[in-house]
Amino acid sequence: MPSYTAPTKDIQYVLHEVLNVSGSDIPGYSDLEPEFTEAILEAAGQLAAEVIAPLNPVGDKEGCTLQNGVVSTPKGFREAFEQVKEGGWPGLDMPEDFGGQGMPYLMGTAVGEMFSAAGQAFTMYQGLTHGAASAILVHGTDQQKATYLPRMVSCDWTGTMNLTEPHSGTDLGLMRTKAEPQADGSYRISGQKIFISAGDHDLSENVIHLVLARIAGGPEGIKGVSLFIVPKFMVNEDGSLGARNGVSVGSLEEKMGIHGNATCVMNYDEATGYLLGAEHKGMRAMFTMMNEARLGVGMQGLAQAEAAYQNAVAYAKERLQGRAVTGAENPDGPADPIIVHPDIRRNLMDQKSFIEGARAFMLWGAQLIDQSHRAGDAEAEGLISLMTPVLKGFLTDKGFEATVNAQQVFGGHGYIEEWGMSQFVRDARITQIYEGANGVQALDLVGRKLAQDGGKHVMAFFEMVKSFCKENGEGEMAAFTDPLKTASKDLQSAGMFFMQHGMKTPNAALSGSYDFMHLFGYVCLGLMWARMAKVSLAALANGTGERAFHEAKLATARYYMARQLPMTGTLLKRIESGADPVMALPVEAF
Amino acid sequence: MPSYTAPTKDIQYVLHEVLNVSGSDIPGYSDLEPEFTEAILEAAGQLAAEVIAPLNPVGDKEGCTLQNGVVSTPKGFREAFEQVKEGGWPGLDMPEDFGGQGMPYLMGTAVGEMFSAAGQAFTMYQGLTHGAASAILVHGTDQQKATYLPRMVSCDWTGTMNLTEPHSGTDLGLMRTKAEPQADGSYRISGQKIFISAGDHDLSENVIHLVLARIAGGPEGIKGVSLFIVPKFMVNEDGSLGARNGVSVGSLEEKMGIHGNATCVMNYDEATGYLLGAEHKGMRAMFTMMNEARLGVGMQGLAQAEAAYQNAVAYAKERLQGRAVTGAENPDGPADPIIVHPDIRRNLMDQKSFIEGARAFMLWGAQLIDQSHRAGDAEAEGLISLMTPVLKGFLTDKGFEATVNAQQVFGGHGYIEEWGMSQFVRDARITQIYEGANGVQALDLVGRKLAQDGGKHVMAFFEMVKSFCKENGEGEMAAFTDPLKTASKDLQSAGMFFMQHGMKTPNAALSGSYDFMHLFGYVCLGLMWARMAKVSLAALANGTGERAFHEAKLATARYYMARQLPMTGTLLKRIESGADPVMALPVEAF
Repeated sequence: MPSYTAPTKDIQYVLHEVLNVSGSDIPGYSDLEPEFTEAILEAAGQLAAEVIAPLNPVGDKEGCTLQNGVVSTPKGFREAFEQVKEGGWPGLDMPEDFGGQGMPYLMGTAVGEMFSAAGQAFTMYQGLTHGAASAILVHGTDQQKATYLPRMVSCDWTGTMNLTEPHSGTDLGLMRTKAEPQADGSYRISGQKIFISAGDHDLSENVIHLVLARIAGGPEGIKGVSLFIVPKFMVNEDGSLGARNGVSVGSLEEKMGIHGNATCVMNYDEATGYLLGAEHKGMRAMFTMMNEARLGVGMQGLAQAEAAYQNAVAYAKERLQGRAVTGAENPDGPADPIIVHPDIRRNLMDQKSFIEGARAFMLWGAQLIDQSHRAGDAEAEGLISLMTPVLKGFLTDKGFEATVNAQQVFGGHGYIEEWGMSQFVRDARITQIYEGANGVQALDLVGRKLAQDGGKHVMAFFEMVKSFCKENGEGEMAAFTDPLKTASKDLQSAGMFFMQHGMKTPNAALSGSYDFMHLFGYVCLGLMWARMAKVSLAALANGTGERAFHEAKLATARYYMARQLPMTGTLLKRIESGADPVMALPVEAF
Repeated sequence: MPSYTAPTKDIQYVLHEVLNVSGSDIPGYSDLEPEFTEAILEAAGQLAAEVIAPLNPVGDKEGCTLQNGVVSTPKGFREAFEQVKEGGWPGLDMPEDFGGQGMPYLMGTAVGEMFSAAGQAFTMYQGLTHGAASAILVHGTDQQKATYLPRMVSCDWTGTMNLTEPHSGTDLGLMRTKAEPQADGSYRISGQKIFISAGDHDLSENVIHLVLARIAGGPEGIKGVSLFIVPKFMVNEDGSLGARNGVSVGSLEEKMGIHGNATCVMNYDEATGYLLGAEHKGMRAMFTMMNEARLGVGMQGLAQAEAAYQNAVAYAKERLQGRAVTGAENPDGPADPIIVHPDIRRNLMDQKSFIEGARAFMLWGAQLIDQSHRAGDAEAEGLISLMTPVLKGFLTDKGFEATVNAQQVFGGHGYIEEWGMSQFVRDARITQIYEGANGVQALDLVGRKLAQDGGKHVMAFFEMVKSFCKENGEGEMAAFTDPLKTASKDLQSAGMFFMQHGMKTPNAALSGSYDFMHLFGYVCLGLMWARMAKVSLAALANGTGERAFHEAKLATARYYMARQLPMTGTLLKRIESGADPVMALPVEAF
């Protein structure tokens, strides 16, 4: 069975040495002293390692079941969920007014990585609740907030997002679910939603569905879509639960992975719903959930990679096969551990340099969200809006790749379910698909975010990289800033190509959108590694007591610069080949 | 449920227009006239599409079961296996002396792609038999051949390969299974083997295990390993089956995919075995099977990609979401089919340009094997020996990637098992692992094959590319030969880097071995696409009646050159970064 150890030290390094969070003037950040965050991370890490992780293979094997309309989660999920609730973890970064702990989103993200790494399917129940609660927090009336938030912040009630219908996925304008206005101001919701994660289960007293639907007589397409709160059980005035609402589970999907999470077909049959936010402005309200959810999914990609990596390292140190080409390193044993072989190292370093760079990127992104929400910083908001599709798309693509590489270290043992490596791959795979498939993220990035506010945010990003390199490019740091400059130049050239061709030939930009998302991701991780190199070089120069730790950071940074970042050259070439190679073939020739 | 249509026309194109097989002087090739091969391919394609493909999801869902020591295959496998046998397909390229049809290996490969694409798990029963029969054919005594081959060629008896033990995978020198010589010349085999594909089942009367074991008193390590024939049921002098031998199934593995194939733990308990080939020369005999098996596995990677691609194309043409950015293409419908979107095209073209290039590469490889075996051509043998790890490693890595991309086209529908796309991914994943994990292929390529015969074969390959480009680089062909030259130069530079550094620092070569395998693969497919471009340009110039077909080949070739082949630049940079980035981190810092 795979094991998991929370990477507390690595997270602390990013929070305090790289991001210097307690020195930030973002409201709430001054509390985030190293001892304080360490205590939180250690408690979360212990719960992740000891309670959530052991359930992960159980959930995979057992899955969820639907009997007589009732969904049951795998054995042990209820007890573990109670422990998570008792610790107050679901409300960690929710407002104190509603029973939360009022900490920054940053801390929710750091803890979220641990919980997701230990059990993605399990942690989704609480993650979706968080997203739904956030939407109510931003768009709900005072009464709605008072009714739902305290119970959702505690996870006594859980939440869901209902977007997809059988014929309507990415294109939500095609949606058919109807909402008929009632005399009392409520609506009757009717229709079918599919792929509803955590759609029903036995972990909570009530499930609060957020459902996109059309109000009869509204505009066609996406502009006629509104968002509704549809509770599984009606809520009485005194907060007690009333009758069952007209919502039921049609079936559970059989999936490649995340078996421990109930993916439901939900049938709404004149269910009572309450408008959340303005009429016909459902997409705006939903996007509050979706942006947060997208960051959360990027984090899941990183988390699965971390969990898989830890097990691959352990196996590579234990498994004895062959001898180091430079001479036996375990001469008394029958063979050397496979970590002596360069190609195993190459594989592990690919994973490690991605994971640690991605973690810094993710936590930086979470900090930008806090800067935007807590400090009202419009530039931070613009930057994180730009980078959200990159965080989602790049971190899940590379995260999935990392789980495949980790599985590969095990050889045949990786392919059998017994060792648990297959589950990491199968679970990680969904992160590339849900909350907007990665192709849609790329479209969002190139079709919308790049030009947002006149291209101001991408220019700010370029400027940030440029000034970092200028201010820090001397001496030993040149080994990190020089490759970063080259990669950033590739990214700028790609942006320039889109500017020159995109207006006249939109397909020239869209054909390169996926490559651009990756190119952007490589540069972001390059910036993160350059920042980490700076921190660790300074620590070593200042005689740190943690020499080995900082030397490892530098070695990993060098690996990233030498062997990952050069990918930007190929991506730029692909982009600059434009639309013709992609669009030339007539449809019937496929 | 996914469907499959055999790509007969594409295979015919490679056989006759690209490889010009019936014009070759390889013995047996003159029979391969277009009408003749078409008849074979159409019959095989029909069997694949109508009999094998419908069973593929059944096998995945049902899997194999072990009850009271007896393995049962999924419902329908027995009947389908009978149909394959009745058609004489297992013996297609086996000698007529033993009941085969005596056709070239090339034809076995072409048919094998179809069968594997339709059902990998199912087709493995016959594929492993073919490998075992080949080893007996090359290394067996006349009596062994007479006893086993006729029944194995017909698949009345099936075969297996028994190499791996729990502690001994890649490093077969660690193996412990023992063989004790008996007075009658036979041996008593005792030990445990794991991961034995098709180890037992209900499709055949007998199972002929080829088992690696140590003869007591022999040398230690790999030099003391011999190969044995161990039948499940003893064979009497008259060919009838006798008593059950001392071999039994310990358990079946639960795997990520290929559920329809029984992966067995095999226990040998003083089982009677017969030496195959010379004492202590087991590896040599086993390699006969393994080289063939490695090509076969590369072919499986291609086959899964093809099957997944076909379904992704069908879905992309049917699924209506969003509108083309250049204006509605299905104005009367609620939305356009998603194939109008550039990023869906990019995805499909990645798959298509890989698959068709890989098919040409694979069939060329099969031709080289025939040239080596049938015409005794040592240069062909050297070249295919060099390229075997590339065919195995590159085609399975890119084949797996293609199945993931095909799954991605389906969005959420790709992740649920109902549509069958998950199975292609899960089944394809094993091809990167078995018959030598791809890291081991890379080691074989760089550590052994490159320098074989003084580097003669890799030089011959470079020369082949160079002269092709020189002879064909004028006019329209320059668009194909120029990128190929650049890529080939990258490959040569990588080879040069290994020569300069590999002797002094073996890790400098081994650190880049995986990248080199891919770099080689990209160049091979580049050569194939340049050859196909030449053929199709000529066909168009000569007023072919198949304009659309050849124009599609050219568009796909252009895509490959513009968007796939540039990867060689990044791979070269990785290789040239040498051992330091890969090896710098101390083991304890992982």
